[in-house]
Amino acid sequence: MTPAPHDLSRLCIHTATTKPWGIEEAARRYGGSGVKGITVWRTAYADRTPAAAGALIRDHGLSIVSLCRGGFFPAGSAEERSRAIDENRRCIDEAAELGAPLVVLVCGSLPGQPLSESRRQIAEGVAAVLAHAAAARVRLAIEPLHPMYAGDRSAVNTVGQARAICNQLRSPWLGIALDVYHTWWDDSLEEEIRACGREGTLFAFHISDWRTPTVDILEDRGLMGEGCIPIRQIRGWVEAAGFRGFNEVEIFSRRLWASDQARYLEDIKAAYLAHA
Amino acid sequence: MTPAPHDLSRLCIHTATTKPWGIEEAARRYGGSGVKGITVWRTAYADRTPAAAGALIRDHGLSIVSLCRGGFFPAGSAEERSRAIDENRRCIDEAAELGAPLVVLVCGSLPGQPLSESRRQIAEGVAAVLAHAAAARVRLAIEPLHPMYAGDRSAVNTVGQARAICNQLRSPWLGIALDVYHTWWDDSLEEEIRACGREGTLFAFHISDWRTPTVDILEDRGLMGEGCIPIRQIRGWVEAAGFRGFNEVEIFSRRLWASDQARYLEDIKAAYLAHA
Repeated sequence: MTPAPHDLSRLCIHTATTKPWGIEEAARRYGGSGVKGITVWRTAYADRTPAAAGALIRDHGLSIVSLCRGGFFPAGSAEERSRAIDENRRCIDEAAELGAPLVVLVCGSLPGQPLSESRRQIAEGVAAVLAHAAAARVRLAIEPLHPMYAGDRSAVNTVGQARAICNQLRSPWLGIALDVYHTWWDDSLEEEIRACGREGTLFAFHISDWRTPTVDILEDRGLMGEGCIPIRQIRGWVEAAGFRGFNEVEIFSRRLWASDQARYLEDIKAAYLAHA
Repeated sequence: MTPAPHDLSRLCIHTATTKPWGIEEAARRYGGSGVKGITVWRTAYADRTPAAAGALIRDHGLSIVSLCRGGFFPAGSAEERSRAIDENRRCIDEAAELGAPLVVLVCGSLPGQPLSESRRQIAEGVAAVLAHAAAARVRLAIEPLHPMYAGDRSAVNTVGQARAICNQLRSPWLGIALDVYHTWWDDSLEEEIRACGREGTLFAFHISDWRTPTVDILEDRGLMGEGCIPIRQIRGWVEAAGFRGFNEVEIFSRRLWASDQARYLEDIKAAYLAHA
């Protein structure tokens, strides 16, 4: 049995979790309440330069864990795919300016195109930006998305598929972001996490919970403990595989965004200690 | 490339697809428009006996393909699991009275209970009703449900998991209902269908489409051609595996239920010929 987290020292929050807060308020509130890490939604620094947003965040004592998100490589024409590659290079540059060591990739999927072809285009797109990532010293993490997003958000829907791309491109700058929300249902998850550990590709770990019923396919995630995901067990697998990074709370929820965000932040901390 | 269906001779419609119609109207309309098969939602014959509903349906020249649905075996206590088993025996009896040769099983999942334990309880439940099914000459088909239903509707989320239960219990009365909506994302689907063919367990084939975006997790399926599922390709795999049964249209859609059902029936026939 995996023990509860000792403290908040490995707690990271994704800014989208507290979407009503701007980056300044998020950084101040997180930092002031003992949260140690932050992941930045690429749109969150809107009116600041990435460098200014990074300085602001660090002033509040927070580690920047990652920039979300690059990806969306599949497209119907070579020209569009090339534009997506350019956009990913810009995203990597922003991560470097921000001071984020990692870019999370939501890889994309073109509706109606065979998923295997979309995965081929994803591998091709990642390959095209890897040298840029290495030069910027920014790591890339393929995030397998739940199969309910296979149609339009990611053709990479299992850790096994993400590993296949990592093994094809094999680079110290390429790994996997494992999110319990997307992967908890997979009966090969423990084995796949072990394989990621062996291959050195476990770059990020995201937590939230699966509510029953789930009323919205995008924005109805639960706070840890509100749902049925065995989060602590999965964290145990991830740590047994050697992961020592942050446990990152990433909750998209209209219900929770509508609540008092200061109280919600306290609830996140309590839920983290009780269920992560 | 799999050719289009020659005609409507293998078209079956699930009554839930045209939910606004009662069983009498559904049977009359389907039969009158050249549809050959019908699957009956267990609630659809409401004010009739199953035998009377069966006679009514056959009067319209329709083959009864299956009764939907049994299942929901996992539960927190032995007593509840025993009640679920009794309920499945009643469902099998109803299928026999109706004249349906098959009961589709939505196997169930207890939120918060490990999925592996729910699958164990599912296998136990199916095992407990198999003799009853054989005596009634009603086949049972485990329907793997999309992973987005793992929390509360079915812990069987891949064809591989359904096959594992079939191989464990091995009975000519137990097989699999393959629904493209639930399984299209699976990169082992072709191989799994081939294995079902070898093992003689491909009992039913359901079609609909996956819309992007999907706005409701339960009731936003698409008509064939409205989404991104390679339906014809999957039908090709299913037929290559030896399946010669009906292609069954099962669409839960509030949007389509709100439309004119007579016109919708014509759309289903056209979509079937164009995309199935």
